[in-house]
Amino acid sequence: MDCLIVGVDLGGTNIKVGLVTPAGHVLQRHATPTRAEEGPAAVAARICAAALDCLQAAGRPVGEVGGVGVGSPGTIDMDAGVVTFSPNLPGWAHVPLRSMVEDELQLPCVLDNDANAAALGEYWLGAGREAHSLVLLTLGTGIGGGIVLDGRIWHGDRGVAGEIGHMSIDPDGPPCGCGNRGCLEAHASATAMVRRLREAVEAGAETPLARSLDGLSARDIHAAALDGDPVARANVEMTGRYLGVGVSNIMHILNPEVVAFTGGVTAAGPMLFEPLIEEVEWRTLADSREGVRICAAELPEDAGIVGAARCFMLA
Amino acid sequence: MDCLIVGVDLGGTNIKVGLVTPAGHVLQRHATPTRAEEGPAAVAARICAAALDCLQAAGRPVGEVGGVGVGSPGTIDMDAGVVTFSPNLPGWAHVPLRSMVEDELQLPCVLDNDANAAALGEYWLGAGREAHSLVLLTLGTGIGGGIVLDGRIWHGDRGVAGEIGHMSIDPDGPPCGCGNRGCLEAHASATAMVRRLREAVEAGAETPLARSLDGLSARDIHAAALDGDPVARANVEMTGRYLGVGVSNIMHILNPEVVAFTGGVTAAGPMLFEPLIEEVEWRTLADSREGVRICAAELPEDAGIVGAARCFMLA
Repeated sequence: MDCLIVGVDLGGTNIKVGLVTPAGHVLQRHATPTRAEEGPAAVAARICAAALDCLQAAGRPVGEVGGVGVGSPGTIDMDAGVVTFSPNLPGWAHVPLRSMVEDELQLPCVLDNDANAAALGEYWLGAGREAHSLVLLTLGTGIGGGIVLDGRIWHGDRGVAGEIGHMSIDPDGPPCGCGNRGCLEAHASATAMVRRLREAVEAGAETPLARSLDGLSARDIHAAALDGDPVARANVEMTGRYLGVGVSNIMHILNPEVVAFTGGVTAAGPMLFEPLIEEVEWRTLADSREGVRICAAELPEDAGIVGAARCFMLA
Repeated sequence: MDCLIVGVDLGGTNIKVGLVTPAGHVLQRHATPTRAEEGPAAVAARICAAALDCLQAAGRPVGEVGGVGVGSPGTIDMDAGVVTFSPNLPGWAHVPLRSMVEDELQLPCVLDNDANAAALGEYWLGAGREAHSLVLLTLGTGIGGGIVLDGRIWHGDRGVAGEIGHMSIDPDGPPCGCGNRGCLEAHASATAMVRRLREAVEAGAETPLARSLDGLSARDIHAAALDGDPVARANVEMTGRYLGVGVSNIMHILNPEVVAFTGGVTAAGPMLFEPLIEEVEWRTLADSREGVRICAAELPEDAGIVGAARCFMLA
């Protein structure tokens, strides 16, 4: 396939669109607000307008484009090209996004989950280059994931594999938004970090963050930890430990070559990764650990775009 | 491939050998004690003798056999055809079992892990017939597993995927033989059942089993539960609940079509499976549960043999 592909990373806040070459070079990028509240038709129109803007800016005609790959948050019916449900796109249910894009651009489109697309992007051009397999964990308000095995996204039987954030790492752990208890997400998401910080303050821990509990974010906790606040630091380290439990489970089950992390929390760097890897080392069988790379994603900005384009290429 | 394949299920106690047709029919079976303590050469010789016995009993010449598939306990180096380590075959380390069999029978051989082979057998002819994907959990002294995705065993990067028993379901749970804490195996293996029963008795629980704690087995606990002993019954049910946590994790990560169980503990039937499925239902996202079949394996006797033969066919 020698033509260009449009890669679309549809997020709850922004739509990122890129014009991607067969080798994965992004010729042109364009970002625009999602405004999901305006409804699917408006969002689809904005995706297509951004794609055309990219082409114009790059001075390439539509005729050079072979197709469009879209990574969307939520549950995707791959066969139908439908976003069945998406907590990050309020009001979206059973949205036939693929045909909406195809009709508007008159180009074939492939739709996949955004974390799957990002995992494929990292596999293709980032942390998983030349690897056999990669699992990507996306750390944010929740914890998502994508699994790439032998160069292909593993979608599972009904297309919902990779719900890594909802594995239980403690049967009686804190309640998760999903209804389960002790999910990895309930221990190690940005939301969980904030909850644990509040609980620590309520239990009497002394931290400057106690003065700004309203609107507290994981970023604030990370900043305070860097400033030397031991309560914040313990919070970040504990997050790393919980992630280590989850990663160890993934390693035992799948024995992937690469486990990569993306999302704001990864900015904490060694403060997060050192306890994470320490936890993995004592929890994981030596054979399951052998040769596995645990690292930050290498394409935090572009993985979604190039991965979505790659989804189209491999379809 | 029209020829017959010899399938070998090498266990710690017995070697089971079968003559398998291309359609998976077992024409002839032969079992012989493993006697691992006599060393790899003696075991390889016994495997080959059993294969020849099968052929003779079936009245088929060696010329009709295309090859041999062997499922062995332990860690397998697939490329080299070597059993690198096997707790169930004492003293075995770096045993080139594939070439030992090939040299003796003058037939090509494929070597894989026994749980992988059993999973492939169940996928091919048992609980996973016509399914998209299957995860098999083998419940015994430990908990092993095999993962079949799109008709192929998922081996992982270094061939050690499927170590399902060593996923942590409780970061501070009971110690596991592997050095980790809170492994599924430390909660739900036959060994864990016996340990929990002892602990209950030490804590004052009244059960007829208290009189026979020496040499107590999971089978005894199951029998007592069937006889109406509430302590034993709670033990079996709790085992089901812990397995449910592990199954829910597998469903979130892999979204397989079938999750099957094999091993002695499955004889407990509904007493084990009802709490297991109850646990899965409240813990697992609706999308991840949709269409998934959780069941006992259908070929507890033959899965290892036909699966090993299938490993050869697919190699």
